[in-house]
Amino acid sequence: MSPDPGPLGLIAGGGQMPLRVIAAAQAAGRQVFAVVVEGWAEPADFSHVPHVVVRVGAGGYAIEQFRAHGVRQIVMCGRAQRPSLMAIRPDAGMARMLVRVGIAAWQGDDGLLKAVVRILEEDGFEVVPSQAIVRDILPEPGLLGATAPGELARGDIRRGIAVVRALGAADVGQCAVVQQGLVLGVEAIEGTDALLARCAGLRREGPGGVLVKLVKPGQDRRVDLPTIGPVTVAGAAGAGLVGIAIEARGTIVVDRPATVAAADAAGLFLLALDPDEFLKETTP
Amino acid sequence: MSPDPGPLGLIAGGGQMPLRVIAAAQAAGRQVFAVVVEGWAEPADFSHVPHVVVRVGAGGYAIEQFRAHGVRQIVMCGRAQRPSLMAIRPDAGMARMLVRVGIAAWQGDDGLLKAVVRILEEDGFEVVPSQAIVRDILPEPGLLGATAPGELARGDIRRGIAVVRALGAADVGQCAVVQQGLVLGVEAIEGTDALLARCAGLRREGPGGVLVKLVKPGQDRRVDLPTIGPVTVAGAAGAGLVGIAIEARGTIVVDRPATVAAADAAGLFLLALDPDEFLKETTP
Repeated sequence: MSPDPGPLGLIAGGGQMPLRVIAAAQAAGRQVFAVVVEGWAEPADFSHVPHVVVRVGAGGYAIEQFRAHGVRQIVMCGRAQRPSLMAIRPDAGMARMLVRVGIAAWQGDDGLLKAVVRILEEDGFEVVPSQAIVRDILPEPGLLGATAPGELARGDIRRGIAVVRALGAADVGQCAVVQQGLVLGVEAIEGTDALLARCAGLRREGPGGVLVKLVKPGQDRRVDLPTIGPVTVAGAAGAGLVGIAIEARGTIVVDRPATVAAADAAGLFLLALDPDEFLKETTP
Repeated sequence: MSPDPGPLGLIAGGGQMPLRVIAAAQAAGRQVFAVVVEGWAEPADFSHVPHVVVRVGAGGYAIEQFRAHGVRQIVMCGRAQRPSLMAIRPDAGMARMLVRVGIAAWQGDDGLLKAVVRILEEDGFEVVPSQAIVRDILPEPGLLGATAPGELARGDIRRGIAVVRALGAADVGQCAVVQQGLVLGVEAIEGTDALLARCAGLRREGPGGVLVKLVKPGQDRRVDLPTIGPVTVAGAAGAGLVGIAIEARGTIVVDRPATVAAADAAGLFLLALDPDEFLKETTP
């Protein structure tokens, strides 16, 4: 890192994470310039920092803006609603980028993010993970709250790990809901909140299930880590789940005190685990 | 097969398939005795054949009934809503069966069906596939209707094959919806109709996606083949899809004339394919 890294650039999607990055950067005395993506983030949330609102296709304009504001390091974070290639309507700069990375980059759910990272790096920017700006958002292995999973839940976590890994290998979702060995739902493009909402209606009788949310193999840990927060806990409680298992050092917990408090209040366990270690510890 | 196979036993789930099995057996001059599963099938649909209505847990009673009616061959078909282990409330006979097959059989979405098949066979019944009773429900490779997939759709089918195979290897769903390379949804326990309904809301701008529905690796082809019919076509049309790809000789098309007519009317392609051949034919 150069002595003066300049203002921090932020490509902001939805949710709390971009706001936490801003707060942490400002607390460290650093300026922030945000590119707020239209339809993903709420522009009003960014009124306290210099920012522009851009549509997904205006990548060329966004890069010009970062340059004009002296940005050399960029964080990308927040919930993204992935557009189809047709919906992008690229500006001239973005069209050149798309040609450069090729349409092939579009395949797979990670295609867009990986393409964007590659473009930013080729254009001389450094892509910085949000966890380098906001401390302590990646839990170490262990229980985060007061509740621990029972044997049945641990069996469901095992099954969830197998399913999420299979999905991840095909570059689809990051999470699954398992109840008593039954896979109630797997995530694709709809996101975790929608997955949990639908699993409420698919719930079977008896002890509730678990949400397992892991890092995909090959996932770029700088820009696309799975995230949970108080909203996830509320969704899990609403779906009748008994807890949430996340990947230790790989799943971001946004606002950890509020997340843990919500889980404790609902009686849900919050377990950060190393998937390989967990599979070794538990017997099938 | 013995000279007189006796009446055909039928374990009936939801949808049209069990009724088509009855019609085909009767047309061939064979008696049918049906075990209609409560909550899955509509008992009123079976008033024209000898039958009993049993709840999922009453497996012991069902087997007694098959024996009492001289049944030696059994077809299992129709939509099943898989219960949790807790929801079964097994009768005495079923409890002995569960002990026999073990709880481990419960893991995986195919666990229940495989356990039931094993129990029936150990008890001396022959499990017969519905396609042995109803002819011409497993299409050969080729287009079934008037519409053919374009290049974009063929790319989506490729991606769908990869995703469904990954899911199948983890013993989860049989199908996925892909639009312009994006995986809009993957099926778990909710079933294809629910998957299509939710993909209507996840649709991206531009050319519509495809539904890919394949046989799972290791799937028992006697009792659990993927199935499509007019309802699937209506769901696909409602989700803005451009077509449906199924596994040739592996996906049942219930009421093929009506299914093809619905697809043709909606301008959807219906392609039966051999996944390996298809991957060879198309360039990535």
